Amino acid sequence: MPQHRIGAQTICFENRPRILATASVAGPKEGRGPIGNQFDLVIGDALFNQESYEQAEHAIFLEACKRCLQKAHIENRQVQAMLGGDLLNQIMAASLSARELSIPFLGLYGACSTMAESLTLGAILTDGGYASPVLCAAGSHFCTAERQYRFPLEYGNQRTPAAQWTVTGCGACLLGQGDEGMARITMATIGRVVDMGISDANNMGAAMAPAAADTLTAHFRDTHRTPMDYDRIITGDLGQVGSSILRELMKENNYGIPDDHYMDCGLTIFDPKEDVHAGGSGCGCSATVLSAHILPKLQSGEWKRVLFMATGALLSPTTNQQGETIPGVAHAVILEGGN
Amino acid sequence: MPQHRIGAQTICFENRPRILATASVAGPKEGRGPIGNQFDLVIGDALFNQESYEQAEHAIFLEACKRCLQKAHIENRQVQAMLGGDLLNQIMAASLSARELSIPFLGLYGACSTMAESLTLGAILTDGGYASPVLCAAGSHFCTAERQYRFPLEYGNQRTPAAQWTVTGCGACLLGQGDEGMARITMATIGRVVDMGISDANNMGAAMAPAAADTLTAHFRDTHRTPMDYDRIITGDLGQVGSSILRELMKENNYGIPDDHYMDCGLTIFDPKEDVHAGGSGCGCSATVLSAHILPKLQSGEWKRVLFMATGALLSPTTNQQGETIPGVAHAVILEGGN
Repeated sequence: MPQHRIGAQTICFENRPRILATASVAGPKEGRGPIGNQFDLVIGDALFNQESYEQAEHAIFLEACKRCLQKAHIENRQVQAMLGGDLLNQIMAASLSARELSIPFLGLYGACSTMAESLTLGAILTDGGYASPVLCAAGSHFCTAERQYRFPLEYGNQRTPAAQWTVTGCGACLLGQGDEGMARITMATIGRVVDMGISDANNMGAAMAPAAADTLTAHFRDTHRTPMDYDRIITGDLGQVGSSILRELMKENNYGIPDDHYMDCGLTIFDPKEDVHAGGSGCGCSATVLSAHILPKLQSGEWKRVLFMATGALLSPTTNQQGETIPGVAHAVILEGGN
Repeated sequence: MPQHRIGAQTICFENRPRILATASVAGPKEGRGPIGNQFDLVIGDALFNQESYEQAEHAIFLEACKRCLQKAHIENRQVQAMLGGDLLNQIMAASLSARELSIPFLGLYGACSTMAESLTLGAILTDGGYASPVLCAAGSHFCTAERQYRFPLEYGNQRTPAAQWTVTGCGACLLGQGDEGMARITMATIGRVVDMGISDANNMGAAMAPAAADTLTAHFRDTHRTPMDYDRIITGDLGQVGSSILRELMKENNYGIPDDHYMDCGLTIFDPKEDVHAGGSGCGCSATVLSAHILPKLQSGEWKRVLFMATGALLSPTTNQQGETIPGVAHAVILEGGN
């Protein structure tokens, strides 16, 4: 029986699956941000020629998947599995894209942790020879997320200082066993659901930070590594509030992360001059930044090894209104450049 | 590099992961049905001592998971991964249960196909040595599903003849590599998302049947097997309408399923005298029938080998109201008794 487990939560990939190609599609506000020129496509407006924001989210998801396959020179029918999700109820952007792509589909829901969840499971499928190549994708849309989780945009709700701005965009990665690629996945740490009692739907960073600290601490404990073993510890969308809580918690756990080793995708994607308050969020946040910004740096050799941890707040408006607090979950994958 | 793939959509498990234990919790109407005395627990009323139906769904999910671990004599902290989902938006019954169990959690959304999706991924994790034991679970609740997908019960909506009755219940299975168990998972066929244009949210059987036929046909094509190689071809919740469409489609595909080799969980769980119209549905339907009825028959040797295919209708009220049709998806796992 093979054994790919170290410690309580971490998996080691013997065959180090490759990310063969990646593509990202992002919204106009994301396009005006500091990494705006790194996305494969920046759409002209939030509707992307569709009749509803949900249709736009679906079209963005599909476009990112198609561009990823094109860049890898792979046809849909060669892809053995697709793993992905989004923030829409019933993950409709992913489900409808899987319908059009006609690839065997395993739907995931991990809120904003979805990109790391899909890479974890995709790497397992590839590493073990259960499926290859595998398409992993995650996306979100500001306008659908606001309506579904908080208020419809038409209501003109005042945003609180801790609120984050859901990224409009999708990132897709093709995993497989080719000769060349952008990076390899060498480990994954599966997170537990952690809830420290935050109930404010406008403070997702604080809801996610304890789960992020839990997974990160588990990773270091399982692997006997420290933050200094990575060029960057990259979190998905903790934003200003969540990032500072995470770094405080990690200091308490004796795994303090120096400034120049830390990055949060939610603090990377938007121009601070835009009206985004505590930063970006949504599963499209970490997915597009991974695709457009992180993987190219691993491919070029600027970074040798990073920990990519997407962070999710499992917010349900229904259970939240019934008095439930907001649990968080975070999964980490280790990405290494070179061959 | 290992290779566990046969054909376009099917995976073969070299180490044939075991289902070590299983447990089911079901609602009162399910308890009055033909297999009512086979569930581990039948709850007294749909609220299960909680204040809302959502809380009840969560409590049922958690109870099934706890009972499954108890029957296996395994502590939460020994379980290396939990894979599961339900029909609530943001899969809150599973997410909140994962919080209480504190097991590394990978959330899934496959509508009513979730139990087969979790067994497929759970078997991959176990077979490849990525995690073991692994807890797989799926659940649903009639009262939350009606409110979320159709109308609140208080509205007193008239049900159409093709409507199905969402099962209140949860089934959980613990997968691992012990010496004894109830059955082994030997293969899995991952389904594609198929949409034949059904848009009626009260006719889920018809929406799911083409996806079920697609997965089943792929399985037989990949494995060079026929329906006669299985004691039963078991579908999740096609109900009367979907089952007859599936069997018609399979006949056209030259894989006709004889009456005495076919079973649908949705046509098994309720007493036909109850007011359930076309049968049971919901991801708790196939999960509870698997746990209470199918696995014991494999363990006792009454059945040697069955194909268990959970079927999901990816219905989103939002996209449905925007004119989208309802895509379906179905995943199949092969379960074998004996050692």
